[in-house]
Amino acid sequence: MHTYSHTQLHTFTKHVFMHCGMNETDAHQAADVLIEADLRGIDSHGVARLSGYVRLWQKGRANMHPRLHIVYETPSTATLDADEGLGLVSAPHAMHIAIQKAKQVGTGWVAIRNSNHFGIAAYHAMMALPHDMIGIALTNASPLVAPTHSKQRMLGTNPICYAIPAGKHNPVVIDLATSTAANGKLEIAQRANKKIPYGWLQDKNGADTDNPHALKDGGVLLPLGSGKTEAGHKGFALSALVDILSGVVSGANYGPWVPPFVAFLEPRNDMPGKGIGHFVGAMRVDAFREADAFKKDMDQWIDAFKSAVRIDENIPIIIPGEPEFEIKTERLLTGIQLNDLVIDDLNKLGSELGIPFS
Amino acid sequence: MHTYSHTQLHTFTKHVFMHCGMNETDAHQAADVLIEADLRGIDSHGVARLSGYVRLWQKGRANMHPRLHIVYETPSTATLDADEGLGLVSAPHAMHIAIQKAKQVGTGWVAIRNSNHFGIAAYHAMMALPHDMIGIALTNASPLVAPTHSKQRMLGTNPICYAIPAGKHNPVVIDLATSTAANGKLEIAQRANKKIPYGWLQDKNGADTDNPHALKDGGVLLPLGSGKTEAGHKGFALSALVDILSGVVSGANYGPWVPPFVAFLEPRNDMPGKGIGHFVGAMRVDAFREADAFKKDMDQWIDAFKSAVRIDENIPIIIPGEPEFEIKTERLLTGIQLNDLVIDDLNKLGSELGIPFS
Repeated sequence: MHTYSHTQLHTFTKHVFMHCGMNETDAHQAADVLIEADLRGIDSHGVARLSGYVRLWQKGRANMHPRLHIVYETPSTATLDADEGLGLVSAPHAMHIAIQKAKQVGTGWVAIRNSNHFGIAAYHAMMALPHDMIGIALTNASPLVAPTHSKQRMLGTNPICYAIPAGKHNPVVIDLATSTAANGKLEIAQRANKKIPYGWLQDKNGADTDNPHALKDGGVLLPLGSGKTEAGHKGFALSALVDILSGVVSGANYGPWVPPFVAFLEPRNDMPGKGIGHFVGAMRVDAFREADAFKKDMDQWIDAFKSAVRIDENIPIIIPGEPEFEIKTERLLTGIQLNDLVIDDLNKLGSELGIPFS
Repeated sequence: MHTYSHTQLHTFTKHVFMHCGMNETDAHQAADVLIEADLRGIDSHGVARLSGYVRLWQKGRANMHPRLHIVYETPSTATLDADEGLGLVSAPHAMHIAIQKAKQVGTGWVAIRNSNHFGIAAYHAMMALPHDMIGIALTNASPLVAPTHSKQRMLGTNPICYAIPAGKHNPVVIDLATSTAANGKLEIAQRANKKIPYGWLQDKNGADTDNPHALKDGGVLLPLGSGKTEAGHKGFALSALVDILSGVVSGANYGPWVPPFVAFLEPRNDMPGKGIGHFVGAMRVDAFREADAFKKDMDQWIDAFKSAVRIDENIPIIIPGEPEFEIKTERLLTGIQLNDLVIDDLNKLGSELGIPFS
């Protein structure tokens, strides 16, 4: 364990991406997305993933100087071809387009194809907030989740993210994987060799399991809602929705064809689309009602839910996004603690590329 | 039990609404929405609810000849004031506006305030399908669901519905309540006095329960995902999203203030907004890519998921919306079976209004 400042991690990350051929603007942008994950406490999606992007590039599967180009367009929509670049760059670019369109016609929606993983969805959706817009970001991802009644990996953890501005309060930021368990929580249980709750995983035969290692042994993650009686078919439907909007609407790959993030797994050779897909949007609040009135109601919404009757007096109701704002405030001051595995990985990457990490 | 043809039920429903002062066009539209629920097998949302709408009107809480008017507008958005009318009429009206806007600028989004319940979300979202558009329909509803860690009714069963066109296959229609259990399933267990699975309900003290009567005794429905380990906080976040888009964006009521559908419960006297809220949208497929290519990929998506490896060879993978298409095909031919309670209720309503039911 060691603690690093966010600027220190940002500088290293930026230099790594520049080493891979990114221009400085794009490298700065990509580093922003990764470090924001660490600041918000989503440790699985921050610098811990940096070497993953580099390995993809070394395999020739990520383009570090892509020509992002619009292939379809209407006043409120566009489809962006990311030219095999990183989602860390194409998704913010698409959000800029969505925001411009929202300024002009009320809302803007951009589907992205031919991309790679875009980091945390919240970074992109939250770009809309300073403009008094609601931001939306979805992405599909390599398959790990099975549809209800199936034991095959058909869907990613396909997140849904909406960022909604408020007035005196922090924005409401909904950012959730459409699987029951986040992979990060599973990894913690795997390292500790501890049983997990039923409802997270299904083993390779399709049976419920409390063994955290069942995923590596051919098992699958369960969609939000878990089994059939608990309405796992709803989580499957939500994950399917994200897959269709991100993958099919854009012309990217979808379902079992979404190429893997990890460089040691090869993409299938029968892919129907291009790369992985994202879908982002921006809606001007004042395209529906006066923005100040909206924000006043959002504050009242937040106050009402914060003060809902508790089951246990000592356990508060949590507004979506609230913990991440608290963690960021703290980490901006005290720094970001990385675990030894991540530090080793970054040291190795740094010495390999000639960019000392620490 | 008795079986009725859909035209028979449609005619009765239309005449009931006309008796309450609706013009023929609106009454036809409202009947369409209710009968479509019965045809699709969503029996809880069909003619079984007809008397509920009439009781609201008798209490002066539903306007049967509303002046629907746009209060805010941009090229891709509008906010519609439903003038205390039924969502059965205002939501289809709003979808027409959304579709027109989508024709012009690629997408259209309409928030609706000052409305009443809109029946099944799928009716409205599916209006987009013949135009090769993706349709979206959300609504908030009277509070029955508690946020994670709370025992207070703060949210409705707030459905999310997306209808997505395909080519040779039926469209994918995702229509799900953001609670774990649908109220209908709970009612079946109540009538049979049978235990329910843990994860559906919480009793009035906030404890998990398998007693289906706990809801009437001050309990709450749980959000999709159920308890904390099963990620119920994600269901809470999704329900919150629907509430904010439907209620706060439109200027309707939200959270605990959403007025009750049942006429014997009074609305709160401190409501911050107007009526209940809906949010609908339409996105032209060819605002993102060539429509035929999209549909071809949707067909491939559906084929891939239908043929995903099964856990049990005899239990197929179900595409969202598939069972409802099958039930509709059947019921168009064989009619709609109503249970005795519903028949009694409709007979009573009919004789009260001088419109013989059967």
